Amino acid sequence: MTAEIICVGTELLLGNIINTNGAYLANQCAKYGIACYYQDVVGDNEERLLGLLKTATQRADVILLSGGLGPTEDDMTKESVAKFLGKELVLDQESLERIEEYFKTRKLVMTENNKKQALIPEGAVALPNDNGTAPGIYLETEGATYVLLPGPPQELIPMVESQVMPRLLAKSDQAICSQTVKICGIGESKAETMIKDLIDAQTNPTIATYAKVGEVHIRVTAKAEDEKEALKLIKPVIKELKNRFGNAIYTTDESITLEKAVADLLLANHLTISCAESCTGGKLSARLIGVPGISEAYKVGYVTYSNKSKRKLLDVKKSILQKYGAVSENVAKEMVKGLMRETETDVTLATTGIAGPDGGTPEKPVGLVYIACNVKGKIVVKECHFKGDREKIRDNAVAAALELARLCLLEYFSEVTFGKEKK
Amino acid sequence: MTAEIICVGTELLLGNIINTNGAYLANQCAKYGIACYYQDVVGDNEERLLGLLKTATQRADVILLSGGLGPTEDDMTKESVAKFLGKELVLDQESLERIEEYFKTRKLVMTENNKKQALIPEGAVALPNDNGTAPGIYLETEGATYVLLPGPPQELIPMVESQVMPRLLAKSDQAICSQTVKICGIGESKAETMIKDLIDAQTNPTIATYAKVGEVHIRVTAKAEDEKEALKLIKPVIKELKNRFGNAIYTTDESITLEKAVADLLLANHLTISCAESCTGGKLSARLIGVPGISEAYKVGYVTYSNKSKRKLLDVKKSILQKYGAVSENVAKEMVKGLMRETETDVTLATTGIAGPDGGTPEKPVGLVYIACNVKGKIVVKECHFKGDREKIRDNAVAAALELARLCLLEYFSEVTFGKEKK
Repeated sequence: MTAEIICVGTELLLGNIINTNGAYLANQCAKYGIACYYQDVVGDNEERLLGLLKTATQRADVILLSGGLGPTEDDMTKESVAKFLGKELVLDQESLERIEEYFKTRKLVMTENNKKQALIPEGAVALPNDNGTAPGIYLETEGATYVLLPGPPQELIPMVESQVMPRLLAKSDQAICSQTVKICGIGESKAETMIKDLIDAQTNPTIATYAKVGEVHIRVTAKAEDEKEALKLIKPVIKELKNRFGNAIYTTDESITLEKAVADLLLANHLTISCAESCTGGKLSARLIGVPGISEAYKVGYVTYSNKSKRKLLDVKKSILQKYGAVSENVAKEMVKGLMRETETDVTLATTGIAGPDGGTPEKPVGLVYIACNVKGKIVVKECHFKGDREKIRDNAVAAALELARLCLLEYFSEVTFGKEKK
Repeated sequence: MTAEIICVGTELLLGNIINTNGAYLANQCAKYGIACYYQDVVGDNEERLLGLLKTATQRADVILLSGGLGPTEDDMTKESVAKFLGKELVLDQESLERIEEYFKTRKLVMTENNKKQALIPEGAVALPNDNGTAPGIYLETEGATYVLLPGPPQELIPMVESQVMPRLLAKSDQAICSQTVKICGIGESKAETMIKDLIDAQTNPTIATYAKVGEVHIRVTAKAEDEKEALKLIKPVIKELKNRFGNAIYTTDESITLEKAVADLLLANHLTISCAESCTGGKLSARLIGVPGISEAYKVGYVTYSNKSKRKLLDVKKSILQKYGAVSENVAKEMVKGLMRETETDVTLATTGIAGPDGGTPEKPVGLVYIACNVKGKIVVKECHFKGDREKIRDNAVAAALELARLCLLEYFSEVTFGKEKK
């Protein structure tokens, strides 16, 4: 089964709002194995919408439309679909009653134009809207199935999940499953080179790489008769990816972020962490604190942007700052050492670098960042060179710091385990 | 002039990422008066991309394509456009040198497939990419103008602003100018109600409101023969908006962010600032430090996520924490007081709140945040109630903290000035 997504709205066309409905609907299709090859955005314009309906009907089995079901004159999705199919709009009594009830319970006066929302093309099914006034519309025809959805995401999402997907899945006879392997510390080109033979050889499952800030995600997608068979196809590929990338893989779970992977390592082993940030200026702490439940591990952070604060809070010696400069391996090292003395946490993490746009020199260019990690006294410092604007350099530095913490923690655990085994 | 936007990428088609490039490009077109009637999303698939190029060339003068310029085999936008136009791909020596330089400065090994990025269709102009490896491509033909842009927004946006729009605008015969008034502390509905008469009455310039995190932007757009005439139409509307919103306006300059407005107030008056964050966990410092040149004003930040760190670093008394709880007006007040004693900065700013998803109670629900600002001993505490998920609550709290700092600074200056005048 193939689907096409058409999002209708002048706001989308003017770029006033971001098309989150398109991504959501695409994701739902991917999740349930409905192939989707095109997404379109068009304004509230009958002629152009009619043209798109014609094209979409030629290339897909299911046309998912969002937006343009409201009460105002601008809204014309339903009218256009009815016209395209040569169908009349008829009053759906149940929808009208729901709309009247909606206004009554909110003690609002229902204006005449709201009644328009209870009209649906003949032969269609109205999909009740629990979060707004406009019902959705589900219409099977010989050419294709048309699904018309309200534009506001808080109305569209529950309707798709509870009413649309079950209807569409009942029509499908194939399952598509995918699994993502997330790696860190290896660029996209290198990662792809490392698995080029696999990518070239595979057709089912397929393997694709995606570049993220400081990360690469590899998605393995299989088609089969049912979910169980699809997962069986994926399994050996994931195993091979693990062989090739080893520790660079931080998760094989789509929902796990890099900061969550670090947080989980800390929480599972009852370790505490603190951060001292210069160039990243709070971004590293902010990402860690984005993980719910982190308070058991994350204790305190310092944004030591000035040299004075590095001296005062982290006890970095003036002589070291003067000799090597604030952006140096030595200062990064002193930062994590001082932070551990000061906070008595198990793990300390520090960044110092030149985020630009100014402040670079030939010896220390913009983008140079030192990252230090201290796990119970064992310190590793990494020198990084990032490109891009101030924000990109800082975001890359945060990702590199999280990755360094993860690798240092893994090494610490392997030594701890090894030590135990030797006894 | 009409444009069509084609965003290429399997990630978009699978709904793995939200199409922010589409919204950005649409917004740029709207801003500069280029009519855009269609946006399309298509995967990394030659056949389908060729089909779309044909359709788009029939209905638009300018085809803006984003994505698929990377080094991997998936990336085929450039190849498809060249094939569609019957043009060869040729090596652009300057682009190759830039790519080699990119890898050299980062001390990375350049793999063979990266060279592919230096190929451009014959007759095209390579657009240097200051934030990545793949250059953009600008190609004028008899049928249409094709603009190929890299997918990552941090590469695409600066390229569009500095290289693409100036080229496209030079082809147009009408000037469209817009100016943005940015306000804080007033919701979008209220802001719109306050200027509904203006919005309804105006056709040129037009007035539109846009909701941002903790802010509302009002854009005034005028069309005229030339820029000077367009600006003349805009001027009285901006004056009227200033009358109505007063101090809630933090800037009328599109490029100024809220954090930049705060930074400018500090820097112009040689004041220093420090932050203590609980629920925002570094996000407030991170935003301030995003402003280049902030080091003259921003001195130090504390992420006092645990109660222990609030006591130790900010000297918040245990009795106050126990009596009122960490999320309270009293603790917020103690935080900015302690921070000023500790850091000797002129302005101190603190946040403490419940970001969720857990930790809320009927008395102190998720979304409750206290923000305190201390300007040379004068303290203001604001109680806020935010809705949404953990990230949204934290982002709103950061915006509210910046806004509180701005208002406290303005008040401080007005008193300082008033005091001087009285003498």
